[in-house]
Amino acid sequence: MANIIDSLIKRMAKLPSLGPSSSKKIALHLIKNKENVLKPLIIHLNELIETVKECEICGNLDEIQPCNICQSIKRDDKKICVVENISDLWAMERTAAFNGRYHVLGGALSALDNIHPKDLKIPDLINRCKQNQVSELILATGATIEGQTTAHYIAEQLASYDIKVTSLAHGMPMGGELDWLDDATITTALRARYEF
Amino acid sequence: MANIIDSLIKRMAKLPSLGPSSSKKIALHLIKNKENVLKPLIIHLNELIETVKECEICGNLDEIQPCNICQSIKRDDKKICVVENISDLWAMERTAAFNGRYHVLGGALSALDNIHPKDLKIPDLINRCKQNQVSELILATGATIEGQTTAHYIAEQLASYDIKVTSLAHGMPMGGELDWLDDATITTALRARYEF
Repeated sequence: MANIIDSLIKRMAKLPSLGPSSSKKIALHLIKNKENVLKPLIIHLNELIETVKECEICGNLDEIQPCNICQSIKRDDKKICVVENISDLWAMERTAAFNGRYHVLGGALSALDNIHPKDLKIPDLINRCKQNQVSELILATGATIEGQTTAHYIAEQLASYDIKVTSLAHGMPMGGELDWLDDATITTALRARYEF
Repeated sequence: MANIIDSLIKRMAKLPSLGPSSSKKIALHLIKNKENVLKPLIIHLNELIETVKECEICGNLDEIQPCNICQSIKRDDKKICVVENISDLWAMERTAAFNGRYHVLGGALSALDNIHPKDLKIPDLINRCKQNQVSELILATGATIEGQTTAHYIAEQLASYDIKVTSLAHGMPMGGELDWLDDATITTALRARYEF
């Protein structure tokens, strides 16, 4: 195999979701379709470098600074939804159920992976809450140990301020069947049961 | 989500082995690591466009024309191994068990997908066999209906020439257990049994 192809496959195999086998398929597809796939892809990636910026306020990715969500006058300044990653922000936006602002932490606290509050945008969040008149902070970090640790840490930091700190509800996913759910979810859903 | 990111995810989701979810992960990873992942990847892809060529003789991909395998003086000119795709050639080369030349067809005959001999490099192969003193043609097309149809077609075309046409053996894969094999493989292996 030509060196350049071999090294490209190795380089691509390091990307998330890809391994040696899928990288090989993609590399071959790109070489076979230089004109109509590879060249447009390179142009697109170059545009990405030039245009996409991380929003200085919330950490979202957008072509404008601050991002569309932070600039929008239709959104509620008093509510901030805290998420771990940009893909979580996108998932939340897909629902169109939230009309406030966001704050992307860039991950979750983890003693194992040596990720401390200063490694995430937690200090920025605390400052943002102090400086603006935020009335509610919605903690939408993951339902994992790391996500919940992060949520608890943030809630503690803001305990002395007059800010309502809430969390997404935990329980059965919609369309879920009991038989397929893990025990922790069933236990949580049972404990959080409500009157019908 | 910014338009340029959305359209990049859609573009990448069309690549083999990728879907919307894995494309999203890759796109985010590329944006987050502009300097040390995205930029080197673009440089690498641009190099690919400039340097990689399809070998005029065998259809292999390489940085030189004709390819390394076709240029090598250590390889046996009299044996040609016929494969469907370049990844098959790579698989064969990995074994280091073959010391002849190759011919990449670019696919297999398929009435369903409307792929005829002229759509593949079959005419080139026939010419190559006629013009050079090929003594053995090893048909290493897939053990699929299309692969076997292609093999039969090529064998027919060369029936009147003094060329030994062989095929890879079919049977139990090494390390395979009977219980896990499909019926067709067991039947083939039984029919092709040899004295121990």
